[in-house]
Amino acid sequence: MNKDIPVISLQRLPIYLNYLKSLPEDRTYVSSGLIAEALGMGEVLVRKDLAYTSATGRPRVGYVAKELISALEDFLCCNGRRSAVIAGVGALGRAVLSYGGFANYGIEIVAAFDSDVAKIGTAVAGKPVFDILDAKREVRRLKAELAVVCVPAQYAQKVSDLLIESGVKAILNFAPVLIKAPDGIVVRHIDVAANLAILSSMI
Amino acid sequence: MNKDIPVISLQRLPIYLNYLKSLPEDRTYVSSGLIAEALGMGEVLVRKDLAYTSATGRPRVGYVAKELISALEDFLCCNGRRSAVIAGVGALGRAVLSYGGFANYGIEIVAAFDSDVAKIGTAVAGKPVFDILDAKREVRRLKAELAVVCVPAQYAQKVSDLLIESGVKAILNFAPVLIKAPDGIVVRHIDVAANLAILSSMI
Repeated sequence: MNKDIPVISLQRLPIYLNYLKSLPEDRTYVSSGLIAEALGMGEVLVRKDLAYTSATGRPRVGYVAKELISALEDFLCCNGRRSAVIAGVGALGRAVLSYGGFANYGIEIVAAFDSDVAKIGTAVAGKPVFDILDAKREVRRLKAELAVVCVPAQYAQKVSDLLIESGVKAILNFAPVLIKAPDGIVVRHIDVAANLAILSSMI
Repeated sequence: MNKDIPVISLQRLPIYLNYLKSLPEDRTYVSSGLIAEALGMGEVLVRKDLAYTSATGRPRVGYVAKELISALEDFLCCNGRRSAVIAGVGALGRAVLSYGGFANYGIEIVAAFDSDVAKIGTAVAGKPVFDILDAKREVRRLKAELAVVCVPAQYAQKVSDLLIESGVKAILNFAPVLIKAPDGIVVRHIDVAANLAILSSMI
């Protein structure tokens, strides 16, 4: 993936992709104007976002729909397919396991971990739930490099340490605590409440 | 809330607050160095973040712990207490309803909406689930200005339109589609998959 793309643009690419896939199969061309109108966005912005991909529009007719779909898919997945695990099978973990949007980015959720014996050995959304104590073995076996941490705040650091020891290189953290990680490991924090608070400050 | 604070700093404030609240009651002073070490951050960054609040550190001893807690709470809630509703009581909606982190920002989740008769009339995490068709009446009655949209992508726009008609002024959208909203309504999009893809591009 082109690392120079702004996050805000990257987040829009799967939205374009979903829209393009929703069009009738027999549609040959699609213009940035059409996409912009359908999604309620500015046309210049759409063109700018799409310019990060390898697709090139043609004067008057726009993009070949199939080429644009391929260009978006290539762009989103061009760092290869990666496997991710979920730590914590509470309400949030279940939601993430059931979420279908990862495939657009070439990411596959392959397993989940929990410490609750009632959950270990079950499957959620078709993915096996393993004992967190077996993380080292399973993360290696599954070659998972990504993890989504959905455990309560007080366990987030310990679980992250274990995942990193097991070979995970990037952690998306939903727990409302900062995760410390050694150099070379990337961590991103999604704080749902902070996001709502930011909105609240804007009205 | 001070609108000039960067989002990234705003997201760290509740983390400081949680940490400070975890300290023993009899602790009088707390320094930016101590906070930085405990949270694995740089001291300069901590001081910079805290400077957005009304708290002022004292040379050598640092901040009065109680004053700093109050300053953080004031800062995070100074636009008054606001009520929020959740649209969609699937796995994600349940997770958001159960999430305790909103109180730090003066936000209270007061109700949820769904179209499933099996869910309408029940309570999730102590919050009533109403029929989405009654949104207009209930949003007004509850004076809710914020909403978190956790419905499937194909319903997100319709549900958002209904919430906006009902008086909601800010929407946090988890569905992987762009929500169109009239001027004066703010919308923020959290795309879990895009966030994981960004991490994936960094390793």
